[in-house]
Amino acid sequence: MPPVALITDFGIADWYVGEIKGAMLSACPGISIIDITHHIPPGDIKAAAFTLAVCFRTFPEGTVFCVVVDPGVGSGRRAIAADSGRSLFVGPDNGVLSWALSLRPPMSVRTIDNSDYFHRADISSTFHGRDIFGPVAAHLAQGLPFAAIGAETAEYEKIPFPRPAVTDASISAEVLAVDRFGNAITAIDAALANHLIGKALKLRFRGACHTISPGDFFQSVPRGEPLCYLGSAGYLEIGVNGGSAAENLGLASGDRIELLLK
Amino acid sequence: MPPVALITDFGIADWYVGEIKGAMLSACPGISIIDITHHIPPGDIKAAAFTLAVCFRTFPEGTVFCVVVDPGVGSGRRAIAADSGRSLFVGPDNGVLSWALSLRPPMSVRTIDNSDYFHRADISSTFHGRDIFGPVAAHLAQGLPFAAIGAETAEYEKIPFPRPAVTDASISAEVLAVDRFGNAITAIDAALANHLIGKALKLRFRGACHTISPGDFFQSVPRGEPLCYLGSAGYLEIGVNGGSAAENLGLASGDRIELLLK
Amino acid sequence: MPPVALITDFGIADWYVGEIKGAMLSACPGISIIDITHHIPPGDIKAAAFTLAVCFRTFPEGTVFCVVVDPGVGSGRRAIAADSGRSLFVGPDNGVLSWALSLRPPMSVRTIDNSDYFHRADISSTFHGRDIFGPVAAHLAQGLPFAAIGAETAEYEKIPFPRPAVTDASISAEVLAVDRFGNAITAIDAALANHLIGKALKLRFRGACHTISPGDFFQSVPRGEPLCYLGSAGYLEIGVNGGSAAENLGLASGDRIELLLK
Repeated sequence: MPPVALITDFGIADWYVGEIKGAMLSACPGISIIDITHHIPPGDIKAAAFTLAVCFRTFPEGTVFCVVVDPGVGSGRRAIAADSGRSLFVGPDNGVLSWALSLRPPMSVRTIDNSDYFHRADISSTFHGRDIFGPVAAHLAQGLPFAAIGAETAEYEKIPFPRPAVTDASISAEVLAVDRFGNAITAIDAALANHLIGKALKLRFRGACHTISPGDFFQSVPRGEPLCYLGSAGYLEIGVNGGSAAENLGLASGDRIELLLK
Repeated sequence: MPPVALITDFGIADWYVGEIKGAMLSACPGISIIDITHHIPPGDIKAAAFTLAVCFRTFPEGTVFCVVVDPGVGSGRRAIAADSGRSLFVGPDNGVLSWALSLRPPMSVRTIDNSDYFHRADISSTFHGRDIFGPVAAHLAQGLPFAAIGAETAEYEKIPFPRPAVTDASISAEVLAVDRFGNAITAIDAALANHLIGKALKLRFRGACHTISPGDFFQSVPRGEPLCYLGSAGYLEIGVNGGSAAENLGLASGDRIELLLK
Repeated sequence: MPPVALITDFGIADWYVGEIKGAMLSACPGISIIDITHHIPPGDIKAAAFTLAVCFRTFPEGTVFCVVVDPGVGSGRRAIAADSGRSLFVGPDNGVLSWALSLRPPMSVRTIDNSDYFHRADISSTFHGRDIFGPVAAHLAQGLPFAAIGAETAEYEKIPFPRPAVTDASISAEVLAVDRFGNAITAIDAALANHLIGKALKLRFRGACHTISPGDFFQSVPRGEPLCYLGSAGYLEIGVNGGSAAENLGLASGDRIELLLK
């Protein structure tokens, strides 16, 4: 049985993630559940969309990704699921699934409206992770036919991916995430990064300008120096050997940077 | 085999939770373990009692809840387990199980004194989660007869639930928890909350007075506005749409609030 | 099938730990994975070595310990695995495994160079946890013969254990870790601790001198008082009943303390 992989903004100090798992196991004993992260900033749909997009391809065939970042919980926003052939995706229809689905266009998208697979008939108005998304994801991992969850839909919310701006002399791009090590992960994908990798660059950002050594791995530059490299997520990253690009350079998620080819 | 669900104050930065699981798997290979939370504030028995009470009913039948918040570890305080028919509960006899047991009165309570099911004969004096509670919970999940763990006991520690004070015009209650989103969960249960839900209220608290819009879900009030609603845990909560009641209003766990019907 | 137990410095806010597990499950569906901790300070090889050394003996026979604290990822540093007979150890050859291996000398150590068991042929230069260590550990837990991973090697990196300095009147030792409760875990092992346990001591440290009550468990001294006791990890610890030795005394990991027999 393939696993259900969870991405949420619930944190792990409260009982919410435990309760989602309790509801999933009540529906489907023996289901396998993997935590991707529960530390999406509260309500940050874009951060969750990026997290899903960069990691879903590493998981086994048939994995059901259940993404619960849902500021509109209880409102009219729909609950949806998508079948991409290799993976299934479950979450609110607020764009949180859309970056992954742009990489692996779905064969079918359905609204989740069959309450047979909900945790209970009288669902709460504030915790659909426990009452709807988790149990439905568990049933799908256990082999429930995709068509059973609800009606086919042609439309779903898509949030725009912040495409870099490219000129002959520079690439300007958004920092999409900063990780625990302080590495800044940009929106520059592998194809575009190939123009930059291995070249000495200038990084312009918030008025300042830094020289970035070309590098392939952290220790390929002297300790404390910044480098830019194609990261494990498939995007260009800016890091510091033995240090933190976030701390040393002041880079933060959402920043706009410019990389100048000298 | 039903799972063991863990609630502790060990955090997850140290190796303690890993070691509890190692001891459980050494005793019972293949046991299934669910983390509810390991972030109970150190030694906060009441926070653990509340966490268990609000979530245990979502878990599958037969789940063994293992609660290790144990400032008296190594002292004369007893180790106990309770069988409520549907679930089993394991922990120190310091009241940590008592709120759940008041909701589902146990058929049997026993002291844990049969060392056959401990991790090792020479138990530590500071880590009974690894040496006693975890392994005994694992054995119970694996089917050990409840009577095997030790002698029946008539008494166990109960901590008083902070009941709200009700008048015709107001309800005064304690904030029992503040979650990651800054929602304040009060001691006002669903039956009592029904008098308040959907009505415009005044919230009095630390000398200040706020108007609380009636709401059902977060986006039912304008962004940035407070609302009160029956939360997923079955208690009245105070939240802010797109914000944090803890930050915006200054609410914290342990606060006494008063809700005034206008 | 024995579990794989993980120790990393990836934290849990990013998708990295989820991705390691995704790669492990892609290689070996049904593998069982236990988190020991992902909160080793970034790049802190010594903290990871200590964490592994204090807890590996609690896990079931056959457990594969996968330790990914790897500041030299992508460089020439080798990837190794060790077979101690009872357990297997996988990680970078930077000393991270060496304290555990000094407690349980390995029968065989091999370099990991057979890419048949990697996540993919074109491995990243910054995330060998996903691409090499996790999948190889999963294959070993699933029964892959140890010799299949690569060539035998006679040498591997060892980092020196900070041995206490002992005189008739005192023991001077390093604080190797401070846990969530603020207990300071020293490098004084059980054999040496036996000279101290139960005796009134003076703790000298950063110029100040504190009296430490002998104790066996926390509540064996008055609330708020420091005590020293043989901790669950097998080392002498300094704690405070109902409080934090880190906060109350100012003890931190890496500090040098002196315990004076009066």
